Amino acid sequence: MFSYTLQKTATDCGARAGQIETAHGVIQTPIFMPVGTLGTVKGVHQRELAEDIRAQIILGNTYHLYLRPGLDVLEGAGGLHAFNGWKKPILTDSGGYQVYSLSGQRKITEEGVTFRSHIDGSKHFFSPERAIDIQRSIGADIIMAFDECPPYPCDYRYAKDSMHMTHRWLKRCMAQMGATSGRYGYEQTLFPIVQGSTYPDLRRASAETIAEAGQPGNAIGGLSVGEPAEDMYETTELVCGILPKEKPRYLMGVGTPDNILECIALGVDMFDCVLPTRNARHGMLYTAQGVINIKNAKWKEDFSPIDEHTPCFASQQYSKAYVRHLMHTKELLGPQIASLHNLSFYLWLVGEARKHILEGDFLPWKNQMVKQMQRRL
Amino acid sequence: MFSYTLQKTATDCGARAGQIETAHGVIQTPIFMPVGTLGTVKGVHQRELAEDIRAQIILGNTYHLYLRPGLDVLEGAGGLHAFNGWKKPILTDSGGYQVYSLSGQRKITEEGVTFRSHIDGSKHFFSPERAIDIQRSIGADIIMAFDECPPYPCDYRYAKDSMHMTHRWLKRCMAQMGATSGRYGYEQTLFPIVQGSTYPDLRRASAETIAEAGQPGNAIGGLSVGEPAEDMYETTELVCGILPKEKPRYLMGVGTPDNILECIALGVDMFDCVLPTRNARHGMLYTAQGVINIKNAKWKEDFSPIDEHTPCFASQQYSKAYVRHLMHTKELLGPQIASLHNLSFYLWLVGEARKHILEGDFLPWKNQMVKQMQRRL
Repeated sequence: MFSYTLQKTATDCGARAGQIETAHGVIQTPIFMPVGTLGTVKGVHQRELAEDIRAQIILGNTYHLYLRPGLDVLEGAGGLHAFNGWKKPILTDSGGYQVYSLSGQRKITEEGVTFRSHIDGSKHFFSPERAIDIQRSIGADIIMAFDECPPYPCDYRYAKDSMHMTHRWLKRCMAQMGATSGRYGYEQTLFPIVQGSTYPDLRRASAETIAEAGQPGNAIGGLSVGEPAEDMYETTELVCGILPKEKPRYLMGVGTPDNILECIALGVDMFDCVLPTRNARHGMLYTAQGVINIKNAKWKEDFSPIDEHTPCFASQQYSKAYVRHLMHTKELLGPQIASLHNLSFYLWLVGEARKHILEGDFLPWKNQMVKQMQRRL
Repeated sequence: MFSYTLQKTATDCGARAGQIETAHGVIQTPIFMPVGTLGTVKGVHQRELAEDIRAQIILGNTYHLYLRPGLDVLEGAGGLHAFNGWKKPILTDSGGYQVYSLSGQRKITEEGVTFRSHIDGSKHFFSPERAIDIQRSIGADIIMAFDECPPYPCDYRYAKDSMHMTHRWLKRCMAQMGATSGRYGYEQTLFPIVQGSTYPDLRRASAETIAEAGQPGNAIGGLSVGEPAEDMYETTELVCGILPKEKPRYLMGVGTPDNILECIALGVDMFDCVLPTRNARHGMLYTAQGVINIKNAKWKEDFSPIDEHTPCFASQQYSKAYVRHLMHTKELLGPQIASLHNLSFYLWLVGEARKHILEGDFLPWKNQMVKQMQRRL
């Protein structure tokens, strides 16, 4: 069922347009995936995700969903799609990233990771096998391999050992995928993850190992964890040069609108990030003309739409002054509008990128957009 | 422009079906008005209010809007309709109620009320004239007279003096209405308010005074402030017997679903209350079958819709287990769904009441519904 069709590659950069097919429908790439941590994209109805934001796939966090509502509830519902009513594809991370960053205590061994819940301190164990089983239960269309995401900066020795463990864990993930099947009657697909911190030789070795694993899609992890943007771009370029062209490439946890366009130019097809929703809740709005801090006094009597260019009712029908008022009075509708707008903008942006790739003028458009979008309005 | 048509009165109780016309459209009564304190019904988009909840009129709070965003912003926008994008009728309270209940310090004299903002402690003054001017600036279709709402319980002497002052204030409100005109080119209509606490002779005197004032609609204030439900019903019945039949009657701040049906039976046409949205945010969901506390463990694996009878996507598409999960994890979407559901239920309920009044079987239907709705599910 899962397939990827490469539709066009730019001649002057690595940008690609493609199409992924999954059991829950088609994804046109490049694509941005809104993050639905706990089975909900914060502040956004599933109907709005589909019809207004025009999301084609969303992400769920295995660590969070495993703790709440828990696997009994998710399995009882018939998986996350049935639980939250989102009918299009879902990708889940493996839980590793949150275990490393959120858990108060965790111990990593070759077998897996023992950790304590950030909610009640209860003790849990994730292994490659367990991470696959949990993602099977969640019912993700795309399952991520259980990896270790080393911190930044990370010394060479640690990064190398960690990378090798991630590769060994991948074998166990693949074995577990083979030994089990889709829990709810549809196919689930594993994406392995390239690690290696910012060391070019490690990244090269990891990309080669991941490419050889022969999975239907591949991911780049361990970036956007504090390293300079230049390091992120260089690493992404290096890895994209090694990962197979005929499979989708997912850059995990990236990023700002200009990060996304730059990495599309390097050959990335899929992105996810909490920035558009998290920053929305703090009043930061992204537009093609630049970034708006809607709390600023300058918007107090600006009755123009938030952003008339983003094709979403929230962007076009609510004024800057109104959203500023909602943010200042801490009204629920403020974060709701801002989240709808930012996600709609992100989806519009990757849709425009795709159009320009297909039309052959992505690179000059990207260069222009990156300049514009970095402005502070 | 403002008009009321009485379409049908029940033969076995006081229930009425009617229609109000305003500059911003038609309101079919009996009606419930969602409360949009600060220019937003908490957690609900204006689009959802119109299309899903099917609200026909919403309420704004003069005290809150006067403080934030302030009259400069509201006037700059061209009134509240233009500011928040709600295109149907708006009713504003006079600000008095919040001044009495929210302000840390306030001093009531014949001239008006001096009070301090609950936000920054700044000093302000509301008088009957000022309350009219502010509501003119907000751009309400229906403007409420500036009254004193005495607390409950309230001694007879205070209630009587207060009532007389409210009547004197009404004359000043009417004079100010006459001396000014609609700020944004459409007509604004004043509703006076019956007071008199729970004293029948005061209520009778007040209702007669208000009826004689000859305004296009009338309101009953000072109820739902802590008195027993029986007192509320008796007072409402007494007042409805005096207020003119050919004008709409608005019972302020009421109430639960059964309160509303009981008061429709007594002859009330319009209601507002924060209960459906405030209780929604705490996980209390109203249905025709009874009240649901969605946080309870019993809903943990109940994958049935919140309420399949309420005609709203949120009521029908999200499960009890999902909303329970969202409430437990304090996700924004939980209060959003619950608010959408409760308001949709309230609007469905008054719509059904209207149907039954028109069909002639309101009273038995009401008696059955009141029993059902009070159950705890």
